[in-house]
Amino acid sequence: MKPTIRDVAKMANVSISTVSRVMNSPETVVESKRLRVLEAIEHLQYQPNAFARGLIYKRSNTLGVMIPDVENPYYAGLLRGMQDAAVDLGYSLMIVNTDRSKERTITYVENLYEKQVDGIIFASDILHPEYYDIIRHYQIPLVLASTNSIEYDVPSVNIDNEKGAYDAVRYLIELGHRKIGMLSFPYDDSISGEPRYNGFIKAIKEYGLEECATHVTYADHRFESAYKAAEQLFSKYPDLTAVFTASDEFAMGAISFLHEKNILVPDQVSVVGFDDIRMAHMYVPKLTTIAQPVYEIGQHAVKKLYELITEEKVQLYTEILSHKLVIRNSTQEV
Amino acid sequence: MKPTIRDVAKMANVSISTVSRVMNSPETVVESKRLRVLEAIEHLQYQPNAFARGLIYKRSNTLGVMIPDVENPYYAGLLRGMQDAAVDLGYSLMIVNTDRSKERTITYVENLYEKQVDGIIFASDILHPEYYDIIRHYQIPLVLASTNSIEYDVPSVNIDNEKGAYDAVRYLIELGHRKIGMLSFPYDDSISGEPRYNGFIKAIKEYGLEECATHVTYADHRFESAYKAAEQLFSKYPDLTAVFTASDEFAMGAISFLHEKNILVPDQVSVVGFDDIRMAHMYVPKLTTIAQPVYEIGQHAVKKLYELITEEKVQLYTEILSHKLVIRNSTQEV
Repeated sequence: MKPTIRDVAKMANVSISTVSRVMNSPETVVESKRLRVLEAIEHLQYQPNAFARGLIYKRSNTLGVMIPDVENPYYAGLLRGMQDAAVDLGYSLMIVNTDRSKERTITYVENLYEKQVDGIIFASDILHPEYYDIIRHYQIPLVLASTNSIEYDVPSVNIDNEKGAYDAVRYLIELGHRKIGMLSFPYDDSISGEPRYNGFIKAIKEYGLEECATHVTYADHRFESAYKAAEQLFSKYPDLTAVFTASDEFAMGAISFLHEKNILVPDQVSVVGFDDIRMAHMYVPKLTTIAQPVYEIGQHAVKKLYELITEEKVQLYTEILSHKLVIRNSTQEV
Repeated sequence: MKPTIRDVAKMANVSISTVSRVMNSPETVVESKRLRVLEAIEHLQYQPNAFARGLIYKRSNTLGVMIPDVENPYYAGLLRGMQDAAVDLGYSLMIVNTDRSKERTITYVENLYEKQVDGIIFASDILHPEYYDIIRHYQIPLVLASTNSIEYDVPSVNIDNEKGAYDAVRYLIELGHRKIGMLSFPYDDSISGEPRYNGFIKAIKEYGLEECATHVTYADHRFESAYKAAEQLFSKYPDLTAVFTASDEFAMGAISFLHEKNILVPDQVSVVGFDDIRMAHMYVPKLTTIAQPVYEIGQHAVKKLYELITEEKVQLYTEILSHKLVIRNSTQEV
């Protein structure tokens, strides 16, 4: 049988409310008692369940949001959706920027725990075992947004990345393009790397364009890296007429490179992005792209987290929202 | 004489540590005592000074950052500078997005207070009296970043906005432009409206181009609004050869409009932005702009707040960092 707060109190020879205080505001408990309680918690491997947490801990009506890179405009729309949903539900958001650093991410989880957030939304990065373990250790309700976990059973809101990429490439093929390349995230990025690459491969195979399968270069998440990847791609395959890029920022990198080489977009090369960030319609030319419903992903993630906090379970574990192809000015028929 | 925590304890007939607990973790104090303490605090108008706060409250090693619009790419660089400085000093950041809503801003101040942040950085918006009053009421150390206050005595880190605008316009004049317009923020925006407009006026007057003073249209902070303002400007003054815009996002709005009218930038019209957001060098054409040292503004704001928290005063109250003109591809000689 799992130990309860009563067992901890008994072993530490203190009252139940003292145990609660040790967990909630340890500075109000004298050290000798505090240490006895902590020892008992460790000895019994006591972990309050979600229900007990609700009784023991005060609700803070605050949700923690962990994003990997505040400079990436992708998160702007996501955060707006989260914020609007949070305000509707009477919650505030605390946003932290992990920089994809493991150390920083773990520190921030501890921080958010100390700040007694009622739950965490972990956005758009890979849920490494270390992250999962510590969030689970602290029993913080967790929802994934724009990402999902294959290893762990965590509620998530995302799109079908493979299908999105497939739709983008099929559109290029339907415009008559036969020499198509791709700027991809690293393949080992299981969130936006592998699935979008697979979508590209699926589309070209389906239309008998297997020779395009080698026309792929890789970049990390940044414009500068995409610019270089475009340079590599076009120096190897100068007669490409179209490129599918795994993000809008990559599309901008490709278009900037082509512009500097005086190659006209879309007249000579068509470019399709992915995401539909705010900048996509501000760019010259406006980007044709796969629109992720980022605002809705943010909104649904908050609602799902709220469901998890208040009902301790969610109806729909893995939620896949629809993307759509938005045709603007960076693509045209061959 | 100002009342102390001892006076509160005496009046409420409780111990000093109970008063401290009421302020720190009220849920650990029985209601009757808690109410007596709160009454005494109100009656005596007790406000712990910064030093007492340090003794009474635990330090959280967390700073709150309030920004007006998470979708505005200007904040990305600012936040990165803040984060790097915070990490160096052993602090974490909690970012909240106020949406320029008074109600939301005040709720967030209360929230950050409850989360026991050690200080707040208020970025890039006008410090309305309501905001100042509540932050002061809670005795939270405060620093302004990318903004400043004329009414209140609050440490700030900013640039010289008037001089920045002046430098941009002088550059256009030196390129030979004589028909120059401006896309401005509303004049009543005392942070980036009035000073940048004044810089424009100063430069054109200095060069005897007074007739340009009417060539101004206004937009709020968004691209869409700048696009419309560009439309107004060029329909009234179709023979302008240059535009100074009060932000890079405005420059993108103007360039998008001109591009759709088949007016070439920079061949027919030169455009200078302001800010040097990350997108400025990703745009087509790359933007000539006034570079704000946003990363450094963020860094310095955190360091100043740290100084204020640890030493209870700052050496340099009003810090003005240098901007610089960055010449790229959106401008050329007439």
